[in-house]
Amino acid sequence: MFFHKQELQFASKPDKPDAVYARKLQEVLGGQYGEITVAMQYGFQSWNIHLPGKYRDLLFGIGAEEFGHVEMLATMIAQLLEDAPIGITGDAVQDDPTVAAVVGGTDVQHAIVSGAGARPVDSNGNPWTAGYVTASGNLMADFTSNANAEMQGRLQVARLYHMTDDSGVRDLLSFLLARDTMHQNQWLAAIEQLKEDGLEQLPVPSNFPQRKEHTPVSYQYLNFSDGDTADQGRWASGPSLDGNGEFSYHEGTTTSAPRPAPTRPDARLYGTTDVPNTVEKVAGSVQDKLHRE
Amino acid sequence: MFFHKQELQFASKPDKPDAVYARKLQEVLGGQYGEITVAMQYGFQSWNIHLPGKYRDLLFGIGAEEFGHVEMLATMIAQLLEDAPIGITGDAVQDDPTVAAVVGGTDVQHAIVSGAGARPVDSNGNPWTAGYVTASGNLMADFTSNANAEMQGRLQVARLYHMTDDSGVRDLLSFLLARDTMHQNQWLAAIEQLKEDGLEQLPVPSNFPQRKEHTPVSYQYLNFSDGDTADQGRWASGPSLDGNGEFSYHEGTTTSAPRPAPTRPDARLYGTTDVPNTVEKVAGSVQDKLHRE
Amino acid sequence: MFFHKQELQFASKPDKPDAVYARKLQEVLGGQYGEITVAMQYGFQSWNIHLPGKYRDLLFGIGAEEFGHVEMLATMIAQLLEDAPIGITGDAVQDDPTVAAVVGGTDVQHAIVSGAGARPVDSNGNPWTAGYVTASGNLMADFTSNANAEMQGRLQVARLYHMTDDSGVRDLLSFLLARDTMHQNQWLAAIEQLKEDGLEQLPVPSNFPQRKEHTPVSYQYLNFSDGDTADQGRWASGPSLDGNGEFSYHEGTTTSAPRPAPTRPDARLYGTTDVPNTVEKVAGSVQDKLHRE
Amino acid sequence: MFFHKQELQFASKPDKPDAVYARKLQEVLGGQYGEITVAMQYGFQSWNIHLPGKYRDLLFGIGAEEFGHVEMLATMIAQLLEDAPIGITGDAVQDDPTVAAVVGGTDVQHAIVSGAGARPVDSNGNPWTAGYVTASGNLMADFTSNANAEMQGRLQVARLYHMTDDSGVRDLLSFLLARDTMHQNQWLAAIEQLKEDGLEQLPVPSNFPQRKEHTPVSYQYLNFSDGDTADQGRWASGPSLDGNGEFSYHEGTTTSAPRPAPTRPDARLYGTTDVPNTVEKVAGSVQDKLHRE
Amino acid sequence: MFFHKQELQFASKPDKPDAVYARKLQEVLGGQYGEITVAMQYGFQSWNIHLPGKYRDLLFGIGAEEFGHVEMLATMIAQLLEDAPIGITGDAVQDDPTVAAVVGGTDVQHAIVSGAGARPVDSNGNPWTAGYVTASGNLMADFTSNANAEMQGRLQVARLYHMTDDSGVRDLLSFLLARDTMHQNQWLAAIEQLKEDGLEQLPVPSNFPQRKEHTPVSYQYLNFSDGDTADQGRWASGPSLDGNGEFSYHEGTTTSAPRPAPTRPDARLYGTTDVPNTVEKVAGSVQDKLHRE
Amino acid sequence: MFFHKQELQFASKPDKPDAVYARKLQEVLGGQYGEITVAMQYGFQSWNIHLPGKYRDLLFGIGAEEFGHVEMLATMIAQLLEDAPIGITGDAVQDDPTVAAVVGGTDVQHAIVSGAGARPVDSNGNPWTAGYVTASGNLMADFTSNANAEMQGRLQVARLYHMTDDSGVRDLLSFLLARDTMHQNQWLAAIEQLKEDGLEQLPVPSNFPQRKEHTPVSYQYLNFSDGDTADQGRWASGPSLDGNGEFSYHEGTTTSAPRPAPTRPDARLYGTTDVPNTVEKVAGSVQDKLHRE
Repeated sequence: MFFHKQELQFASKPDKPDAVYARKLQEVLGGQYGEITVAMQYGFQSWNIHLPGKYRDLLFGIGAEEFGHVEMLATMIAQLLEDAPIGITGDAVQDDPTVAAVVGGTDVQHAIVSGAGARPVDSNGNPWTAGYVTASGNLMADFTSNANAEMQGRLQVARLYHMTDDSGVRDLLSFLLARDTMHQNQWLAAIEQLKEDGLEQLPVPSNFPQRKEHTPVSYQYLNFSDGDTADQGRWASGPSLDGNGEFSYHEGTTTSAPRPAPTRPDARLYGTTDVPNTVEKVAGSVQDKLHRE
Repeated sequence: MFFHKQELQFASKPDKPDAVYARKLQEVLGGQYGEITVAMQYGFQSWNIHLPGKYRDLLFGIGAEEFGHVEMLATMIAQLLEDAPIGITGDAVQDDPTVAAVVGGTDVQHAIVSGAGARPVDSNGNPWTAGYVTASGNLMADFTSNANAEMQGRLQVARLYHMTDDSGVRDLLSFLLARDTMHQNQWLAAIEQLKEDGLEQLPVPSNFPQRKEHTPVSYQYLNFSDGDTADQGRWASGPSLDGNGEFSYHEGTTTSAPRPAPTRPDARLYGTTDVPNTVEKVAGSVQDKLHRE
Repeated sequence: MFFHKQELQFASKPDKPDAVYARKLQEVLGGQYGEITVAMQYGFQSWNIHLPGKYRDLLFGIGAEEFGHVEMLATMIAQLLEDAPIGITGDAVQDDPTVAAVVGGTDVQHAIVSGAGARPVDSNGNPWTAGYVTASGNLMADFTSNANAEMQGRLQVARLYHMTDDSGVRDLLSFLLARDTMHQNQWLAAIEQLKEDGLEQLPVPSNFPQRKEHTPVSYQYLNFSDGDTADQGRWASGPSLDGNGEFSYHEGTTTSAPRPAPTRPDARLYGTTDVPNTVEKVAGSVQDKLHRE
Repeated sequence: MFFHKQELQFASKPDKPDAVYARKLQEVLGGQYGEITVAMQYGFQSWNIHLPGKYRDLLFGIGAEEFGHVEMLATMIAQLLEDAPIGITGDAVQDDPTVAAVVGGTDVQHAIVSGAGARPVDSNGNPWTAGYVTASGNLMADFTSNANAEMQGRLQVARLYHMTDDSGVRDLLSFLLARDTMHQNQWLAAIEQLKEDGLEQLPVPSNFPQRKEHTPVSYQYLNFSDGDTADQGRWASGPSLDGNGEFSYHEGTTTSAPRPAPTRPDARLYGTTDVPNTVEKVAGSVQDKLHRE
Repeated sequence: MFFHKQELQFASKPDKPDAVYARKLQEVLGGQYGEITVAMQYGFQSWNIHLPGKYRDLLFGIGAEEFGHVEMLATMIAQLLEDAPIGITGDAVQDDPTVAAVVGGTDVQHAIVSGAGARPVDSNGNPWTAGYVTASGNLMADFTSNANAEMQGRLQVARLYHMTDDSGVRDLLSFLLARDTMHQNQWLAAIEQLKEDGLEQLPVPSNFPQRKEHTPVSYQYLNFSDGDTADQGRWASGPSLDGNGEFSYHEGTTTSAPRPAPTRPDARLYGTTDVPNTVEKVAGSVQDKLHRE
Repeated sequence: MFFHKQELQFASKPDKPDAVYARKLQEVLGGQYGEITVAMQYGFQSWNIHLPGKYRDLLFGIGAEEFGHVEMLATMIAQLLEDAPIGITGDAVQDDPTVAAVVGGTDVQHAIVSGAGARPVDSNGNPWTAGYVTASGNLMADFTSNANAEMQGRLQVARLYHMTDDSGVRDLLSFLLARDTMHQNQWLAAIEQLKEDGLEQLPVPSNFPQRKEHTPVSYQYLNFSDGDTADQGRWASGPSLDGNGEFSYHEGTTTSAPRPAPTRPDARLYGTTDVPNTVEKVAGSVQDKLHRE
């Protein structure tokens, strides 16, 4: 269960209102790689985990932290919106043409829908969707997903850092950047730990018996474009990273099969088909079939 | 540009129709980690890349392969549906109660909408959405996303392997498993290559100056749950994976700030607020303001 | 069945074109609480209702009115767009930098997709979705949902009122505000009527036998945050609104249970688990199982 | 900020696995009115609130409780899935035709995607979306939305109660039913409190000056259907609930206006129009305009 | 404005309950090509139209009819659900294993969410979305979209016809099939009328000056696959349908250009790039730039 | 399978950066009728087709071409973004108020998420969804859908043509306009070919026996609005386009049925109903039923 404390994890206060920037900050709150995503992702991974002990504690330990980040960003966005011009007519400031033009870059739902409050959406106003969440039960796969999420997240915060001069906002970003640094390191460390503990190896899932895959193509780089330098990377020669094979490089496919004949499903689905063949197949003429109903 | 060849990358033909399994296969065609996702993801990464040479060739080279996987799965799904009972009444087989019950597990849109054809949806019928795609321009982050996609993909195919006895379907899965093995290895190798080439390091993005982040918390494990074993993992002590710091372990937060006062935006947004304070702020009584319009 | 009459419910005509405001008006046409939502919501409630007579007549009677509001807003939006600059180059007005900047605040799909026509989307361009609709068959719950929809709707229209000086647009808004006033009152009156008619009481659903709920916590306010004033509200002491209990106030939870052990599903789902335990459970070693297939 | 404790709010453990019921429980976890919705809704309302004190404490106090309900449902779903047949072939139980048929009623993504874990989706597999969340800043409107959410939620739990005989699951449901009883009462009490504190009245938003609405229709019931009993309800006569007016009943509309002429936007949007009129309007022939570019 | 009449357009009553079929019928109510789509599509086309007279009357005339079809399908679905087993335990019928299995094929939200009522979703439970609607302002394009919608709709109804033996349901379908026949004919007739009236020709939009397109490829069939029979169709030789050109057939592309060099955007977006080049471009070293902030 | 060639189908290079226009171009890349839609649509139609020979070759032949158009637009968008001001502070150009205002019209995710790269979204930032795709297996219906897609596509490109003066961008648009001209002609020619080959006629699906539809209304124009000119079109009199009937014109409906009584489903769904009737129906009082559980 969760308990809330009416404090934030870090002190930051914007120097001045900025509704345009408030919209941009929505990305790291409610976007594909925003804080809602990681909070929910670590939550579902923790609730579904099949192991007791340190991995479960890890997921629980960080999940609650991320819900706190959701709160910090929502709070900052509300502060940025508090006194910002957001399109109300009749105020001197609002009727300045420059201000009016800038207001065009705000999230208009901040004004119309939430009344100068944060929203669970991204910087283009798309509602957050659980389609962003990954929780498969396989920890090697999921921790890789987590590492990616923290990388994309830190990347977006770094970009946002250059889109404002506000020192209070930058304080918040500097905190999030640091935590993303930790979390990138943490998930990559957790992957190392999984290997050390003998719980999972490459390729994921490692206890599926590899002899059941079509092994001739398991370590082949197949080049389906006409670029001529893809053979110069580590992926094209030398031992594979899982230690089970040797990379090789090939132009195009090494296997192929003729395209099968088109399917000819039941005539009563009314797909377009050359009738006699279909009729033969369903044993009787279409007319017969249709009469039968 | 793309050219199509009327061949498949691997020979496989289902032993028998199976509309229930056809629905399940939709997951790795049109799901969050299905082939459409990786085809589009590698496509957008290649079109947006900032580097010429081997990384671009790599992305182009594999992108077209994945579009071919989309085609292979769509073809297999259509074959599985071809003669399967999908709810048409009046056929002896269909009116068998057991068959009728099994039909309940099919994707009914396979019958009603696509007429026994594959669809760009997942195994629950959710349409594929570009919200699944990642293409940030930062290759370390994106290759980590790619590695995760191939892990989740191979995991799902491995699960699907145990949900059918059909040898023809298993042929296809054995091929996909092998390619996912390669692609996991490949993206992890590409990450190593990026480091070797000096193009990107941890933490991502590595050329953002780390001194601008709030460094005191950059390598702290903060435990926001009451589990007592999270300090036993590699993420809680020892050198960080990026080589720039030393992990430490802490119960709860090491920083905090009092919650700021509530915001009180413009009275004409009609949020609920204690009036006098608001009025003071907008310089005049609410009545005054409202009269002014 | 529905019949259409080529009249609007109220006369209003914009003083001047304003594509930025046209975008804003989309919110109350195609947003979460726009007119499409209430029209469809009252429609589905009426088609699903289990009662003949006045409640059914009420839902039918207002449903058709709301479809007329959809039409009024769509018509107004098209009028606002008619001669507005929307990004076409080569016109003197459009090449004015101020105009160009203002155009940034328009819905660009108004120009590119609908050719200066209204669209079934909200003010951020999100397509309307039936995920907004509520029609449960329980009228107390649904009428509360309706009351909320009319409150959110009137709130948004009130905010929009202050975002334009156009007297024609304000005419339309003044009409919608009045109807929302009526509809708020109407749904709350309908809730009173339901109680009077003995059809439904609190808590909803009222004929579920309350003794089957875990009654010790049925009227407890549990405080999961550390604020210290929540005990000062009507929700924390005194008789409950349903007349069936007495509110009490508690810090944190009054019930709890240890977290159950992690689940350990079938090994062939390849979740990460400590193997021996899993193996024991599926009666045989993983290797054995996998050989068996 | 949030802290997590590795306990649940109530003890409950399913008697036996049941993947079909696990799917159904997803509705109250990740559906329109599931626990994720109320947790996020109360969260955003608390972060955006404009008042200090008891209302803010109320929102914070219940928000964290609901995140705990999310966790309880996710845990229960994972337990229901733990040993349930979910489509793996080669097991005696799975190949029983009756079992196979029942498996058709499960969420196949529980097997393929999450490996017998809970997912942030509803009972039809639709990912949770923030389009369900309401947080307007106006507390009367938002508390009405909250009351509705708790009504719909309790209604769905009551229905689910009759869809299982499992005593452990019913324990959990009995707890949720009781909390929903409390929360319905609580939000309705909070609405009463708002009125008592003079912070908000009907109609919402109450400080918008009602004289600016088109008052002649503010309390008219307009009957747009041909039912003849809608005049028998409290909404059709007597004083309005806000105390500001008197209901009256009318067949059809009391106001109307002729439909305005069609709009004729810029010819370069290529909408279909009768050319001369358009041309006149854009001051020059279409040919002229097009030559000019 | 719209008026509602408490009648249906056609008499039909199901012989018996059938929740599985009720789910299937949802497709033509709330699916991509269901009645909600056409009702809303014709609605938006009518509200946005730029012409008075017969085309506007046509769109208004049919739009209201389609809202009536929405109502008819919703009513039928509720009737099919009325006494159908939908998963309630403890009833003899429900505990029959065959019945239990069949219930797996129902839309479980019909039971949990709408209480045996229709929902605005498709047969897989996806909420209807306005992303299905087309209303461009160009009538030739839009009428072609309408013709397609009526074709897909009639096709789906024809498929559904074979999925039930219920004579009452078939009555309803026979009515919808007839109306779809009319509407296909009607929209194709309207396209002919547009041509006759000189309002629009091929290619759409016909008053865009065709000399501004790259005319050498305007009538070339370019074969990007290796099939060898595409030259046998009417699209590959002879006069084009718009009467403005002559079809020709070509293997692959007739135009091409070398792929441009990769883009190298501002270094502060932290995309992966070979640094010196980037630095040169932004006129100063990355370090310099970053110091400057 | 697909092969990629590192060339584009046409040479075009923007004269200058323009992030606002880059956003607009997203519409024809990732919008409802953008290139992703047609590429995926023709792909699924080709993989599901039931005919060998020229129609299959046609679909394969054009599908790969469209994936190449996706690439061309993505490449152009990245070029337009390359050196455009997109909100980074501290640069002289960016701090110009006019520039700042214009930046408000850009897609901010181009800066924050993709780092100046193209995205699989439309011009309002909505992710592309497979809900746009049509592939029914009936070629007459699907080719009509394809013709519409090419019409809407060409219409949008024509509008975009007037929203830029950039000669390089116009080069690309002139190429796309020409291909859309071809593709409109091509799909309409393919429909003619289907008729000539005797594979499909009107109404679609033509081999459903028309005597099974309610033929009295098959060719009636029913006027559900009060416009008085709809009888002047070709749809209201004369022979129908399918050659099977004669159009006639009618005011309102020619058939009708009284609205059926409300449904009264199982009491344990807790819909609001007048109890006695319900109780009678479920054979026993509600209390009895509830005790029984």
